Amino acid sequence: MLIDNLQYANWSEKIFRQMREGGVDAVHVTVAYHENFREAVLNLEQWNRWFERYPDLIMKGQWASDVDIAKAKGCTAIFFGFQNPSPIEDDIGLIEIVHTLGVRFMQLTYNNQSLLATGCYEKEDTGITRMGRQVIKEMNRIGLVVDMSHSADRSTIEAADLSARPIAITHANPYSWLPALRNKKDDVIRAVTKNGGMIGFSVYPHHLRGKSACTLQDFCEMVARTADTFGVQHFGIGTDLCQDHSDSVVEWMRVGRWSKEIDYGEGSAAAPGFPPMPEWFTDNRDFGKIENGLLAVGMNAEEVAGIMGRNWYRFYEDNFTPEK
Amino acid sequence: MLIDNLQYANWSEKIFRQMREGGVDAVHVTVAYHENFREAVLNLEQWNRWFERYPDLIMKGQWASDVDIAKAKGCTAIFFGFQNPSPIEDDIGLIEIVHTLGVRFMQLTYNNQSLLATGCYEKEDTGITRMGRQVIKEMNRIGLVVDMSHSADRSTIEAADLSARPIAITHANPYSWLPALRNKKDDVIRAVTKNGGMIGFSVYPHHLRGKSACTLQDFCEMVARTADTFGVQHFGIGTDLCQDHSDSVVEWMRVGRWSKEIDYGEGSAAAPGFPPMPEWFTDNRDFGKIENGLLAVGMNAEEVAGIMGRNWYRFYEDNFTPEK
Repeated sequence: MLIDNLQYANWSEKIFRQMREGGVDAVHVTVAYHENFREAVLNLEQWNRWFERYPDLIMKGQWASDVDIAKAKGCTAIFFGFQNPSPIEDDIGLIEIVHTLGVRFMQLTYNNQSLLATGCYEKEDTGITRMGRQVIKEMNRIGLVVDMSHSADRSTIEAADLSARPIAITHANPYSWLPALRNKKDDVIRAVTKNGGMIGFSVYPHHLRGKSACTLQDFCEMVARTADTFGVQHFGIGTDLCQDHSDSVVEWMRVGRWSKEIDYGEGSAAAPGFPPMPEWFTDNRDFGKIENGLLAVGMNAEEVAGIMGRNWYRFYEDNFTPEK
Repeated sequence: MLIDNLQYANWSEKIFRQMREGGVDAVHVTVAYHENFREAVLNLEQWNRWFERYPDLIMKGQWASDVDIAKAKGCTAIFFGFQNPSPIEDDIGLIEIVHTLGVRFMQLTYNNQSLLATGCYEKEDTGITRMGRQVIKEMNRIGLVVDMSHSADRSTIEAADLSARPIAITHANPYSWLPALRNKKDDVIRAVTKNGGMIGFSVYPHHLRGKSACTLQDFCEMVARTADTFGVQHFGIGTDLCQDHSDSVVEWMRVGRWSKEIDYGEGSAAAPGFPPMPEWFTDNRDFGKIENGLLAVGMNAEEVAGIMGRNWYRFYEDNFTPEK
């Protein structure tokens, strides 16, 4: 079973076919960065059209069992997520609405302060807000997973502790391996994993030691070491693959409508665009290389199966349905 | 089995308890008159809160099987419908979105010309529009039922003929019994029923001969005669019960935001508000009177069971799921 728990590509038949070639059973795809509710719904409508048009390649994923159905049919289950809470606006009732529409992950922040928590690019981190506490409770009730990938440390630790159900960091790596604002310090990883949460290892170059030049072996050794430290069952893959996008898209991700000035985020004025992917992972056909790389650094078959999909599958089983 | 296929009350615990006292297994409730998409979603959010608050009294209805589930649990299944296509705006992709959110009926017009068809209060009826044809096809694909209760004759006949699946008139009576703009001429009833469609008999006084003074016997004789003429299997109940609303609500229904001037619709300057209900039907506890009245005018037990719920149930079974 192969699950990638974060991609945001410029979706096309070509990419869906690459998912099939790569044997990818499920992908969690981003359907909003800065969109309000109505705009996020337009993105869901676009996905409905793709589901209608490519039924042999993709299907809508809502529950863990849809991964099995996709596997049996030979297509890829697509699970929706928001990288920002902007689609729920200031309306807690929209949590159940977006869950009904199939959304299964929601970041409480995207780099900046939100109505709910503090993003990882803010100078001060004041933790979970008044609305944030209400929203976490409602997300727990409904089965919408709290994702803190782009959140600041204190906010993330508070979210992990406040949430009655496990939370996720869908795409990031340890700060101890590469000290980037988006990577996670050990305290953060510990808070998430000790509460049953999951972390997806990213292959986005800004999260890799050596960036685009990072070697497969270095990446796999980092995975094995982190799994060893915090418990392998808490880790999976969340590549953050942003395939086939023009650089204007990474600008939209970084700036949305919130600034009139350019903000380079993880990039710089000298390198404002998407960084080149490492040569060992450029599209959905490359998961086998990671799998073999993990075996090569000494992880056993069961551990590798967990990292490559089984751990996310188990997390989906426990966390997408309403609270009992 | 008891199904009322149209109500729009000022919902409250009191009314939900009356549904239980009346043994009502399912109600199709109106969730939009003039609302745009976002506003209609706010109404769905309000229903989610009622479902959360009163799980022993009501549950969300999505499929015919939910009527059985509600019956077994001793609560009432609530099915959603729009009396106007305003919530899908000019966006055909919203049809699948609102169906995913549980909407099962949508009127193509509410009295006025819409983007899709002509309403029953317009002087000229130009039939189904270009967008209307696309929308009917998409509604057929998805399993959202075309409802022509407030549409003009030609538009209704065209909709019945264009639609690949049966359509509905959820709440109206025969024009031959009471010649009101909202009641349906025999040609219209024939077009709907010959294509497998359903019509719900209304007890809203403006649709009754003698209005609020209409007798139960006169109403039941009309039902029996109409069923006899067009086939009993095509008929059910759609009371149009608008319980506990202030008169400002009927003004909103009639005028929405489309006019600065008052339009009295079925009312008049002398009687602008909701008319008093007939003494034999004032709330959800009164369905037994209609049932007994139908038996009293000579309908047999099977026919009456069909009218009181079985016929709508069969229609739900066939028409709420996506096209095979």
